[in-house]
Amino acid sequence: MATLFAHGAYVWGHDSTADVLIRDGVIDAVGELDPAADAETLDLTGQVLMPSFVEAHCHLDKTLFGGRWVPHSAGDALAERIANDRDRRRELGIPSVDRIAALLQQMASYGTTHARTHTDVDPDVGLRGIEAVREAATRVGTVSVHQVAFPQHGVLATPGTEALLSAAAGAGVEAIGGIDPAGMDGDPVRHLDIVFGIAERHGLSLDIHLHDGGTLGAWELELIAERTKALSLAGRVAVSHAYAFGDLTDQHRDSIVERIAEAGVSIVTGAVYSFPVPPVKTLRAAGANVACGHDGIRDLWGPYGSGDMLERAMHLAYRSTFRRDADIELALEAVTLGGRRLLGFDDRGIVPGAPADLVAVPADTPAEAVVTHPAERTIVRAGRVVTAA
Amino acid sequence: MATLFAHGAYVWGHDSTADVLIRDGVIDAVGELDPAADAETLDLTGQVLMPSFVEAHCHLDKTLFGGRWVPHSAGDALAERIANDRDRRRELGIPSVDRIAALLQQMASYGTTHARTHTDVDPDVGLRGIEAVREAATRVGTVSVHQVAFPQHGVLATPGTEALLSAAAGAGVEAIGGIDPAGMDGDPVRHLDIVFGIAERHGLSLDIHLHDGGTLGAWELELIAERTKALSLAGRVAVSHAYAFGDLTDQHRDSIVERIAEAGVSIVTGAVYSFPVPPVKTLRAAGANVACGHDGIRDLWGPYGSGDMLERAMHLAYRSTFRRDADIELALEAVTLGGRRLLGFDDRGIVPGAPADLVAVPADTPAEAVVTHPAERTIVRAGRVVTAA
Ligand SMILES: [Zn+2]
Ligand SMILES: [Zn+2]
Repeated sequence: MATLFAHGAYVWGHDSTADVLIRDGVIDAVGELDPAADAETLDLTGQVLMPSFVEAHCHLDKTLFGGRWVPHSAGDALAERIANDRDRRRELGIPSVDRIAALLQQMASYGTTHARTHTDVDPDVGLRGIEAVREAATRVGTVSVHQVAFPQHGVLATPGTEALLSAAAGAGVEAIGGIDPAGMDGDPVRHLDIVFGIAERHGLSLDIHLHDGGTLGAWELELIAERTKALSLAGRVAVSHAYAFGDLTDQHRDSIVERIAEAGVSIVTGAVYSFPVPPVKTLRAAGANVACGHDGIRDLWGPYGSGDMLERAMHLAYRSTFRRDADIELALEAVTLGGRRLLGFDDRGIVPGAPADLVAVPADTPAEAVVTHPAERTIVRAGRVVTAA
Repeated sequence: MATLFAHGAYVWGHDSTADVLIRDGVIDAVGELDPAADAETLDLTGQVLMPSFVEAHCHLDKTLFGGRWVPHSAGDALAERIANDRDRRRELGIPSVDRIAALLQQMASYGTTHARTHTDVDPDVGLRGIEAVREAATRVGTVSVHQVAFPQHGVLATPGTEALLSAAAGAGVEAIGGIDPAGMDGDPVRHLDIVFGIAERHGLSLDIHLHDGGTLGAWELELIAERTKALSLAGRVAVSHAYAFGDLTDQHRDSIVERIAEAGVSIVTGAVYSFPVPPVKTLRAAGANVACGHDGIRDLWGPYGSGDMLERAMHLAYRSTFRRDADIELALEAVTLGGRRLLGFDDRGIVPGAPADLVAVPADTPAEAVVTHPAERTIVRAGRVVTAA
C-alpha cells in the first residue's frame, strides 16, 4: 500500500501543527517530520486534522433517504407514530437496501467510517431489516456498520420479540437493544434479564434506548449500572438518550453519573429535538464514555438529519451550551473517539500505530472545525485519500 | 429596470408550481403565465421559491466574524461574561466596521435582505456601535438594517444609559431596546416607563430582551402586553427570547399567549442553546406574530452562528419538534414574513404587488427546503438575480 505524508495540519490531540506519516493504512509518525522519499504528499496547511467520524446511534433500516421528500404523516402521540410507521413502511418499501446504501454513501462523503445502527426486529419485519442493512453495508463497503437488534415495540409488550432477538444474535449482529424497560415494557427487571441474558450468552454488546424521564429513568440507569458491574460487562453496555439526566437535581444527577462511570456504561446522545441532553462534561469528568449519533435520519419518525457527524457535534456542543474550545472539543471527542470506544475500535486518536482514518477541514482550531463544520473535506480512509478538497 | 420571468418553481404560499413575472422590482403576476417578450427567463424547475430572509434578532456590533478564530474566553456566570465582553472588545477593536460588513455580506450571500440588530448603547461605548453598524450597512448596501438601541447592561443598573437611549433615538435608530426589567434592572415598572416613554416620544418600535423565567417572566410578559394595549402600540412592540413560556403550565402559557396576541406584541426567538423555545404554533394559532434570529453570531458572548436564516429555520423547527410540513413551514414563515411583520415591511409573500426579494433552493417542498437548507441558492433582490446557482 501507499505511503502518505500529510503536511501542515493542526492535528487534534497533538494540539499544534504537525506532519503525519502514514504507511500501509496505519499512522507511522506524528510531529515535525521530513517527507519520506516514497510518500505521496498531502498539503493540509490551514486545516484541522481529526480522526474520522463515528455515527453512534442511527436507524438505517428505517430511512427514506435518497428518494423524493416524504411529508411526515404521523400524529404527535407515540401510539400514532408507531401505527404510522407500521402502516407506511410497507407502502414505501421500507427497509430498502437502496435507501440505506444512499444514506451510507452520504455519511461516508462527510467522513464517517464507523456506525452503530439500531435495526428493528419484530414479528412483522422479522430479520429482514438486519439483512437489508447488511446488504447495503456490503454494497457501500466504506462504512463499518455494527447492528443492534432493536425491539422498537418492546420485548414483553410484543410477544415473539425475545426469540427474534436471539435469532438476530445468532445471525451475527454486534449488539442487543432494549427500550424503556419500565415505561414501554412495564417490567424493568424481566426486560433487563432478557436483554442482558441474550447479550451475555452470545458475547455481544448491549445498547438500551432510555426515554423514561425523572426518577424512573434515573432508577433504571442505576439498575443498568448495577447489572453491568455484577456481570463484569464494563465497556460493553450503553444507554442511548438517557433523557432522565435532564430532570434531576444536581446532586442526584452527579450520583447517577458516578455509578454509570464506575460501571463502565457508555452514554449515547443525539441531542434530539428539545429533549434534555445528558451532562457530557460531567460524564467525561467522571470518566464515563460519551458517544453521539443522529437517531433517525429522514424517516417515518421524523424528517431531519443530514448524516454529517461534524454538524452533529456542533449541535451537541450548542445544546450543551459549550462556548470554550476545550468544551466544544468534548463534542468532537464524542463523534470520533467516544464512538470508537463504544464500538471497541482503536480510540487513541492520531498517534503512531492507530489506523489512518482521518478527516481534514479548513479551520484554525478543532473548535472552529466543529462550529463551522465546513462542507470542504479531505478524507483519508485506511491510509488512502478518498476525497481531496 | 429589467423584467424577469421566473419559471417552474414550487412557489411557497401559492402551494404549487407557478411562474412569477417580475417588473421593476415588483412581483407583477403569479400563476401559469406566458413568458413576457421582454423578460429575462430564470429556470427554477425543481426549486422552491420563498421570500428572502429576515434576520430578526442579532448583535452585529459585537461580531468577530470575518477574522481568525477567537477562542471563547468568558466564564459561565453572567457577571463573568459581561466583564469579559467589556475588557476584550477594546482589545479586539470591537465594534469593527470591517467585521460587521463581513457578516452582512455573509448574511446577504445566504439570501437575507432585512435585519434587526440590537446595538449596545452604554456609557463606555456611547453611540459608536450605532455608527459602526450604520457605516457597515451603508458599505454593504444589500441588507436593510434596522437598529435597536440596546441597554445590554441595564437602564437603571447602568446610570447614563437612559440619556444614551434618547440620544440614539434622536440619532435615527428604528427601535428602543430593554432587558429583563425585573431580573436585570430590579424595577420593572420604572424600566418599562423609560423604554416605552422613549419609544413613544420618538415614534419608534420597542424590542425587549426577556430572559427572566417562570412566573416572573410571565408576569413581565403581561405587563408588556397591557402597556402595549394601553398605548395603542400594537405591531410596534416585540419581546425577544421570552424563555418564561417554557416554564409554565399549559393553561398559564395559553393565557399569556392570548394576551400577547390580543395586544399585538411580536415574539422573537433564536431557539438558542438549550433555553426553552416559545410555543410557535400556539402563538401563530392565536394570531401573535413570531420572528426568528440568531442572537449573537461569532462574538464574545458565544462562538456559534452562520448567518444563514434557512438553517436557523431548520433549527427552530427542530427545537419545536415540528415534523409535519405545515408545522415546519411555521419556522419558514418566522424567518420570512414574520420578520417583515416585525419590521413593518410588506408581509404578503409572493403575490402581485409585493417587492421581488426572493430566494430559490433545490427542494421538492418548502419543508424540505427548511430541513436540508441547501447551500445552492438563487437570490433575487429588488427584481434582479444577484446570485444564480
Ligand atoms: Zn434511536
Ligand atoms: Zn440578543
